Amino acid sequence: KTHTDCMTSRNIIKLPGFIDVHVHVREPGATYKEDFASCTAAALAGGVTMICAMPNTNPPVVDRQAFDYVSALARVSARCDYALFVGASSTNYDTACELAPQASTLKMYLNQTFTTLQLDDMTIWQRHLQNWPKKIPICVHAEREKTGAVILMASLLDRPVHICHVARKEEISIIRAAKKGGLKVTCEVCPHHLFLSTDNVDDIGSGRAEVRPVLCSPEDQAELWKNMDIIDVFATDHAPHTVEEKNSEKPPPGFPGLETILPLLLNAVHEGRLTIEDIINKFHRNPRKIFNLPEQPNTYVEVDMDYEWTIPNAMEFSKSKWTPFAGMKVCGAIHRVTLRGEIAYVEGQILVPPGFGQNVRDWPSPKKQTFATYAIEKAEKE
Amino acid sequence: KTHTDCMTSRNIIKLPGFIDVHVHVREPGATYKEDFASCTAAALAGGVTMICAMPNTNPPVVDRQAFDYVSALARVSARCDYALFVGASSTNYDTACELAPQASTLKMYLNQTFTTLQLDDMTIWQRHLQNWPKKIPICVHAEREKTGAVILMASLLDRPVHICHVARKEEISIIRAAKKGGLKVTCEVCPHHLFLSTDNVDDIGSGRAEVRPVLCSPEDQAELWKNMDIIDVFATDHAPHTVEEKNSEKPPPGFPGLETILPLLLNAVHEGRLTIEDIINKFHRNPRKIFNLPEQPNTYVEVDMDYEWTIPNAMEFSKSKWTPFAGMKVCGAIHRVTLRGEIAYVEGQILVPPGFGQNVRDWPSPKKQTFATYAIEKAEKE
Ligand SMILES: [Zn+2]
Ligand SMILES: [Zn+2]
Ligand SMILES: [Zn+2]
Ligand SMILES: [Zn+2]
Ligand SMILES: [Zn+2]
Ligand SMILES: [Zn+2]
Ligand SMILES: [Zn+2]
Ligand SMILES: [Zn+2]
Repeated sequence: KTHTDCMTSRNIIKLPGFIDVHVHVREPGATYKEDFASCTAAALAGGVTMICAMPNTNPPVVDRQAFDYVSALARVSARCDYALFVGASSTNYDTACELAPQASTLKMYLNQTFTTLQLDDMTIWQRHLQNWPKKIPICVHAEREKTGAVILMASLLDRPVHICHVARKEEISIIRAAKKGGLKVTCEVCPHHLFLSTDNVDDIGSGRAEVRPVLCSPEDQAELWKNMDIIDVFATDHAPHTVEEKNSEKPPPGFPGLETILPLLLNAVHEGRLTIEDIINKFHRNPRKIFNLPEQPNTYVEVDMDYEWTIPNAMEFSKSKWTPFAGMKVCGAIHRVTLRGEIAYVEGQILVPPGFGQNVRDWPSPKKQTFATYAIEKAEKE
Repeated sequence: KTHTDCMTSRNIIKLPGFIDVHVHVREPGATYKEDFASCTAAALAGGVTMICAMPNTNPPVVDRQAFDYVSALARVSARCDYALFVGASSTNYDTACELAPQASTLKMYLNQTFTTLQLDDMTIWQRHLQNWPKKIPICVHAEREKTGAVILMASLLDRPVHICHVARKEEISIIRAAKKGGLKVTCEVCPHHLFLSTDNVDDIGSGRAEVRPVLCSPEDQAELWKNMDIIDVFATDHAPHTVEEKNSEKPPPGFPGLETILPLLLNAVHEGRLTIEDIINKFHRNPRKIFNLPEQPNTYVEVDMDYEWTIPNAMEFSKSKWTPFAGMKVCGAIHRVTLRGEIAYVEGQILVPPGFGQNVRDWPSPKKQTFATYAIEKAEKE
């Protein structure tokens, strides 16, 4: 397949609605960066029909009051479906679990990043890992040795844990060993760690390139690709900041990602580095199974496999008017998105209003639930 | 029992020769700080009849050439028996294991400390953990999350690991959980973490108080005592530096400890915080079993349980003319040390010359070897 074929043909295929389990909406507290309306517009434009919203907002989602507040904001403003994370703090280990039935799951921040929720003390991790219900994994930002430490702790408590945004050879290799040993660990990788490395920092600009985990070496990047068979989930870690902030003296870490993830993954299919099945498994089936998220009825994404374009300086719908992927040529684009029978997006137009999105934890539980199996089921059919 | 009883009586008891598995001899490379002759004199004066010498010398003990060199130095200079560590470097993971039969075991430095041997990359840990023979644990300097990460890695490779100088609540609590889960982990604690904390830093002086792991909070200290039942080993981490170095702008981390460990432990017996059995288990039986060290024939230490004294500004035999324990009142002193039938130390006098010490790995293996069981055998009799 050559690049010339893309220029003329129109090869539309139908895929399921994608689920992004790692999204920073920035509402409440920093709606100048992003809010539910803009974030979910970006999601739909990117072929994402369900997001899990991270809890490091202001106020952070660490108690009933904040959870109810953010739920109300999401209810009136989200255009796509969603679930909300609860944040683990150094004090809420006895109460956070009361929110478990309504939450996507618990998020623990074990490293310094864009949050006030960092947990420094391993004995606090232990309490959260013990108290949160065991049927759904806790999500952890746990880089390097912390990856190993939290997997050990979770396994000693016989509970599942999900490692967010794996970026390094040492992280993916301990996860491979843990999976081989039968431990209940799943993991996600972000497009910026798959498609960017320290080699791209000069082009992006060192301030803009700030992200946690940082962009790693080309060797780390290559190891992620080599271990594609044990990567359970693709997620964006969509973390919008304004151009002014990213260009400032102290640029906050984070990239927008919702509008670029699917084109980048489709382009990898085009290049023969992924299959369509990989995308469906890691960006729809596995997120759904691991986090016990429901199937969205009549929901699908039509993509043009052969549309070739160059990622512009900023994507359309996120308020963060920049992207680290600017200038990359990709083959593959989102043509139309149908969410619960409604056309939500078509050719650059968002067609559903704020409030159309639903909290999927409010839906009645499916009769037969399928939980994560901690192995990639290549043969599973929708 | 009151303090007055100590002043007059003379209550001598006979204990086995103690084994210190964590000693920095400083020879070769820094013999102005310490050398085999002075270090092993300090050992004998402290009731220690066997030491395991750490590999972070100059040159570091990371290959056959350095190992043979240090072996030769020890052979002519050591007064007590000994074994030598091999150091894990970022490159010697395929060759270090050839030295295993002659070495006490392998040491891996996973944190920044007084060494050039720090291993930053977890995939390097993995190779060492895989390649070194599995019958004796690898010793690791692994603080905080690294404790958890290295235990996970060792357990996935089904090999034993020994955590050096545990100092914090979060470390001892993950070790407790790992032991409860049946993992092959043992650990050691140093007198300075048992008997000193951040509360003592002002008295010691902040430069002199530098040590790795640092002196921790009184809460951390209390947790070590609470978890005494799962502490396998007492070891000094004897790490001499000169007074000038410790008083300098950039004081190197480390305390001398060989001459004070046993008096401090005996004093804890006096205070009812430890039993004599605890000392024999953790400072003789367990080190011997965990590291497969031989019983030294006709070797014992006579201590005066009721001799009360104040630790002076510097102990007699180490070249490091200071101690962080200066000014502490203790009850219990070493009266006489007999090593392989010879009186090696009596009442302040060292009676064996450099060269009297033997490398215990040169001794023929005992017929029936007893390996570590990863549980404290309280009932074991000598
Ligand atoms: Zn093309
Ligand atoms: Zn994160
Ligand atoms: Zn994030
Ligand atoms: Zn599906
Ligand atoms: Zn007394
Ligand atoms: Zn150390
Ligand atoms: Zn040491
Ligand atoms: Zn014995």
